[in-house]
Amino acid sequence: MEKPALVKFYEQYINCLNIRNWDDLHLFVHGRLLYNKQPIQLSDYRAMLEQNYRDIPDLRFQIALLTTGDNLIGCRLDFDCTPVGKFLGIAVNGKPVVFSEHVFYQLQEGKIAEVWSLIDKDAIRDQINS
Amino acid sequence: MEKPALVKFYEQYINCLNIRNWDDLHLFVHGRLLYNKQPIQLSDYRAMLEQNYRDIPDLRFQIALLTTGDNLIGCRLDFDCTPVGKFLGIAVNGKPVVFSEHVFYQLQEGKIAEVWSLIDKDAIRDQINS
Repeated sequence: MEKPALVKFYEQYINCLNIRNWDDLHLFVHGRLLYNKQPIQLSDYRAMLEQNYRDIPDLRFQIALLTTGDNLIGCRLDFDCTPVGKFLGIAVNGKPVVFSEHVFYQLQEGKIAEVWSLIDKDAIRDQINS
Repeated sequence: MEKPALVKFYEQYINCLNIRNWDDLHLFVHGRLLYNKQPIQLSDYRAMLEQNYRDIPDLRFQIALLTTGDNLIGCRLDFDCTPVGKFLGIAVNGKPVVFSEHVFYQLQEGKIAEVWSLIDKDAIRDQINS
Protein backbone atom coordinates (compact mmCIF):
# COMPACT_ATOMS: atom_id res chain seq x y z
CA MET A 1 0.00 0.00 0.00
CA GLU A 2 1.15 3.54 -0.73
CA LYS A 3 1.31 6.15 2.01
CA PRO A 4 -2.14 7.77 1.47
CA ALA A 5 -3.77 4.32 1.43
CA LEU A 6 -1.92 3.33 4.63
CA VAL A 7 -3.07 6.53 6.36
CA LYS A 8 -6.67 5.99 5.27
CA PHE A 9 -6.50 2.30 6.30
CA TYR A 10 -5.21 3.24 9.74
CA GLU A 11 -7.76 6.01 10.32
CA GLN A 12 -10.53 3.56 9.41
CA TYR A 13 -9.02 0.91 11.72
CA ILE A 14 -8.90 3.35 14.64
CA ASN A 15 -12.47 4.43 13.92
CA CYS A 16 -13.49 0.75 13.95
CA LEU A 17 -12.02 0.46 17.46
CA ASN A 18 -13.55 3.71 18.68
CA ILE A 19 -17.06 2.72 17.57
CA ARG A 20 -16.42 -0.82 18.90
CA ASN A 21 -17.39 -2.36 15.57
CA TRP A 22 -15.89 -5.75 16.38
CA ASP A 23 -17.66 -7.46 13.50
CA ASP A 24 -15.56 -5.39 11.05
CA LEU A 25 -12.25 -6.04 12.81
CA HIS A 26 -11.43 -8.81 10.30
CA LEU A 27 -11.34 -6.18 7.54
CA PHE A 28 -8.23 -4.71 9.20
CA VAL A 29 -6.59 -7.63 11.02
CA HIS A 30 -5.46 -11.03 9.73
CA GLY A 31 -6.93 -14.22 11.21
CA ARG A 32 -3.51 -15.04 12.66
CA LEU A 33 -1.01 -12.40 13.70
CA LEU A 34 1.98 -11.71 15.91
CA TYR A 35 1.39 -9.39 18.87
CA ASN A 36 4.62 -8.38 20.58
CA LYS A 37 6.17 -11.48 18.97
CA GLN A 38 3.51 -13.83 20.35
CA PRO A 39 1.35 -15.69 17.79
CA ILE A 40 -2.33 -14.97 18.44
CA GLN A 41 -5.57 -15.23 16.52
CA LEU A 42 -8.02 -12.54 15.51
CA SER A 43 -10.39 -13.82 18.23
CA ASP A 44 -7.65 -13.23 20.86
CA TYR A 45 -7.07 -9.72 19.51
CA ARG A 46 -10.79 -8.96 19.62
CA ALA A 47 -11.03 -10.37 23.15
CA MET A 48 -8.11 -8.15 24.25
CA LEU A 49 -9.79 -5.05 22.82
CA GLU A 50 -13.16 -5.94 24.35
CA GLN A 51 -11.40 -6.44 27.70
CA ASN A 52 -9.76 -3.01 27.29
CA TYR A 53 -13.23 -1.45 26.91
CA ARG A 54 -14.49 -3.30 29.99
CA ASP A 55 -11.44 -2.06 31.94
CA ILE A 56 -11.86 1.47 30.52
CA PRO A 57 -15.47 2.29 29.60
CA ASP A 58 -14.49 5.78 28.31
CA LEU A 59 -11.55 4.46 26.23
CA ARG A 60 -10.89 6.42 23.05
CA PHE A 61 -7.96 5.99 20.63
CA GLN A 62 -6.52 9.34 19.49
CA ILE A 63 -3.87 9.46 16.78
CA ALA A 64 -1.17 11.92 17.90
CA LEU A 65 1.62 11.10 15.42
CA LEU A 66 1.33 8.95 12.31
CA THR A 67 4.16 7.59 10.17
CA THR A 68 4.37 5.00 7.41
CA GLY A 69 6.92 2.76 5.75
CA ASP A 70 6.84 -0.24 3.44
CA ASN A 71 3.47 -1.77 4.42
CA LEU A 72 4.36 -0.46 7.86
CA ILE A 73 2.51 1.99 10.12
CA GLY A 74 3.95 3.74 13.18
CA CYS A 75 1.72 5.67 15.55
CA ARG A 76 1.76 7.51 18.84
CA LEU A 77 -1.69 7.08 20.34
CA ASP A 78 -2.83 9.37 23.15
CA PHE A 79 -5.28 8.25 25.82
CA ASP A 80 -7.16 10.36 28.35
CA CYS A 81 -9.43 7.98 30.18
CA THR A 82 -10.62 6.43 33.42
CA PRO A 83 -9.86 2.74 34.01
CA VAL A 84 -12.43 1.51 36.53
CA GLY A 85 -10.34 -1.19 38.20
CA LYS A 86 -7.02 -2.74 37.25
CA PHE A 87 -5.51 -1.90 33.88
CA LEU A 88 -2.38 -3.73 32.69
CA GLY A 89 -1.99 -4.99 36.22
CA ILE A 90 -2.04 -1.48 37.70
CA ALA A 91 -4.80 -0.71 40.24
CA VAL A 92 -6.11 2.52 38.70
CA ASN A 93 -9.53 2.20 40.37
CA GLY A 94 -11.39 5.04 38.67
CA LYS A 95 -8.65 7.69 38.65
CA PRO A 96 -8.42 9.65 35.38
CA VAL A 97 -5.09 9.01 33.66
CA VAL A 98 -3.32 10.36 30.60
CA PHE A 99 -0.81 8.16 28.80
CA SER A 100 0.48 7.18 25.38
CA GLU A 101 1.14 4.07 23.33
CA HIS A 102 3.84 3.84 20.65
CA VAL A 103 2.85 1.12 18.24
CA PHE A 104 4.03 -0.27 14.92
CA TYR A 105 2.00 -2.47 12.56
CA GLN A 106 3.27 -4.62 9.68
CA LEU A 107 0.67 -5.21 6.99
CA GLN A 108 0.46 -8.23 4.72
CA GLU A 109 -2.11 -8.45 1.92
CA GLY A 110 -3.64 -5.22 3.18
CA LYS A 111 -4.26 -6.33 6.77
CA ILE A 112 -2.37 -6.12 10.07
CA ALA A 113 -0.15 -9.19 10.41
CA GLU A 114 2.19 -8.05 13.20
CA VAL A 115 1.95 -5.51 16.03
CA TRP A 116 4.74 -4.16 18.24
CA SER A 117 3.17 -2.14 21.07
CA LEU A 118 4.71 -0.24 23.95
CA ILE A 119 2.42 1.44 26.47
CA ASP A 120 3.77 4.05 28.88
CA LYS A 121 2.88 2.06 32.01
CA ASP A 122 5.31 4.10 34.13
CA ALA A 123 3.26 7.23 33.33
CA ILE A 124 0.14 5.46 34.63
CA ARG A 125 1.99 4.26 37.76
CA ASP A 126 3.30 7.81 38.38
CA GLN A 127 -0.22 9.30 38.17
CA ILE A 128 -1.66 6.65 40.47
CA ASN A 129 1.07 7.21 43.05
CA SER A 130 0.96 11.02 42.91
CA MET B 1 12.27 16.49 3.84
CA GLU B 2 11.03 13.73 1.55
CA LYS B 3 10.99 10.11 2.71
CA PRO B 4 14.38 9.03 1.21
CA ALA B 5 16.07 12.09 2.74
CA LEU B 6 14.45 11.38 6.12
CA VAL B 7 15.65 7.76 6.02
CA LYS B 8 19.19 8.82 5.08
CA PHE B 9 19.16 11.55 7.78
CA TYR B 10 18.08 9.04 10.41
CA GLU B 11 20.60 6.38 9.41
CA GLN B 12 23.36 9.01 9.62
CA TYR B 13 22.06 10.19 13.01
CA ILE B 14 22.08 6.62 14.39
CA ASN B 15 25.57 6.09 13.00
CA CYS B 16 26.66 9.32 14.74
CA LEU B 17 25.42 7.85 18.04
CA ASN B 18 26.98 4.44 17.43
CA ILE B 19 30.42 5.90 16.71
CA ARG B 20 29.93 8.35 19.62
CA ASN B 21 30.71 11.32 17.40
CA TRP B 22 29.32 13.86 19.86
CA ASP B 23 30.92 16.79 18.06
CA ASP B 24 28.63 16.14 15.06
CA LEU B 25 25.45 15.80 17.12
CA HIS B 26 24.52 19.42 16.34
CA LEU B 27 24.19 18.45 12.66
CA PHE B 28 21.18 16.31 13.59
CA VAL B 29 19.71 17.94 16.70
CA HIS B 30 18.56 21.53 17.31
CA GLY B 31 20.17 23.64 20.04
CA ARG B 32 16.87 23.56 21.93
CA LEU B 33 14.41 20.72 21.73
CA LEU B 34 11.56 19.00 23.52
CA TYR B 35 12.30 15.54 24.94
CA ASN B 36 9.18 13.76 26.15
CA LYS B 37 7.57 17.21 26.36
CA GLN B 38 10.37 18.65 28.53
CA PRO B 39 12.37 21.56 27.07
CA ILE B 40 16.07 20.68 27.02
CA GLN B 41 19.19 21.92 25.26
CA LEU B 42 21.52 20.09 22.92
CA SER B 43 24.08 19.92 25.74
CA ASP B 44 21.52 18.09 27.93
CA TYR B 45 20.78 15.67 25.09
CA ARG B 46 24.49 15.02 24.58
CA ALA B 47 24.99 14.54 28.33
CA MET B 48 22.12 12.01 28.40
CA LEU B 49 23.66 10.03 25.53
CA GLU B 50 27.12 10.14 27.10
CA GLN B 51 25.60 8.90 30.37
CA ASN B 52 23.88 6.08 28.46
CA TYR B 53 27.30 4.97 27.14
CA ARG B 54 28.79 5.11 30.64
CA ASP B 55 25.85 3.02 31.94
CA ILE B 56 26.11 0.63 28.95
CA PRO B 57 29.64 0.42 27.52
CA ASP B 58 28.52 -2.00 24.76
CA LEU B 59 25.46 0.10 23.78
CA ARG B 60 24.56 -0.10 20.10
CA PHE B 61 21.50 1.41 18.40
CA GLN B 62 19.94 -1.00 15.87
CA ILE B 63 17.10 0.16 13.63
CA ALA B 64 14.44 -2.58 13.61
CA LEU B 65 11.51 -0.71 12.02
CA LEU B 66 11.63 2.68 10.33
CA THR B 67 8.69 4.86 9.30
CA THR B 68 8.33 8.45 8.17
CA GLY B 69 5.72 11.17 7.97
CA ASP B 70 5.68 14.92 7.43
CA ASN B 71 9.13 15.84 8.79
CA LEU B 72 8.47 13.01 11.20
CA ILE B 73 10.41 9.82 11.86
CA GLY B 74 9.17 6.77 13.78
CA CYS B 75 11.53 3.99 14.77
CA ARG B 76 11.66 0.77 16.75
CA LEU B 77 15.20 0.47 18.03
CA ASP B 78 16.49 -2.87 19.30
CA PHE B 79 19.13 -3.13 22.01
CA ASP B 80 21.13 -6.19 23.06
CA CYS B 81 23.56 -4.95 25.66
CA THR B 82 24.99 -5.14 29.16
CA PRO B 83 24.33 -2.23 31.52
CA VAL B 84 27.07 -2.31 34.13
CA GLY B 85 25.16 -0.79 37.05
CA LYS B 86 21.82 0.97 37.20
CA PHE B 87 20.07 1.83 33.94
CA LEU B 88 16.89 3.94 33.99
CA GLY B 89 16.76 3.35 37.72
CA ILE B 90 16.85 -0.43 37.30
CA ALA B 91 19.76 -2.30 38.95
CA VAL B 92 20.91 -4.37 35.95
CA ASN B 93 24.44 -4.83 37.35
CA GLY B 94 26.14 -6.46 34.38
CA LYS B 95 23.36 -8.80 33.26
CA PRO B 96 22.88 -8.95 29.46
CA VAL B 97 19.44 -7.61 28.49
CA VAL B 98 17.46 -7.35 25.28
CA PHE B 99 14.87 -4.59 24.95
CA SER B 100 13.36 -2.09 22.52
CA GLU B 101 12.62 1.60 22.29
CA HIS B 102 9.77 3.05 20.24
CA VAL B 103 10.64 6.63 19.39
CA PHE B 104 9.26 9.44 17.24
CA TYR B 105 11.16 12.54 16.11
CA GLN B 106 9.74 15.79 14.73
CA LEU B 107 12.16 17.65 12.50
CA GLN B 108 12.27 21.40 11.97
CA GLU B 109 14.65 23.00 9.47
CA GLY B 110 16.20 19.58 8.91
CA LYS B 111 17.07 18.82 12.53
CA ILE B 112 15.42 17.01 15.42
CA ALA B 113 13.27 19.48 17.36
CA GLU B 114 11.11 17.10 19.39
CA VAL B 115 11.49 13.52 20.61
CA TRP B 116 8.86 11.21 22.07
CA SER B 117 10.57 8.10 23.45
CA LEU B 118 9.19 5.01 25.15
CA ILE B 119 11.60 2.36 26.38
CA ASP B 120 10.37 -1.10 27.32
CA LYS B 121 11.50 -0.88 30.93
CA ASP B 122 9.20 -3.73 31.97
CA ALA B 123 11.13 -6.04 29.61
CA ILE B 124 14.36 -5.06 31.41
CA ARG B 125 12.75 -5.57 34.84
CA ASP B 126 11.42 -8.99 33.77
CA GLN B 127 14.89 -10.13 32.61
CA ILE B 128 16.52 -8.91 35.81
CA ASN B 129 13.98 -10.70 37.97
CA SER B 130 13.98 -13.96 35.99
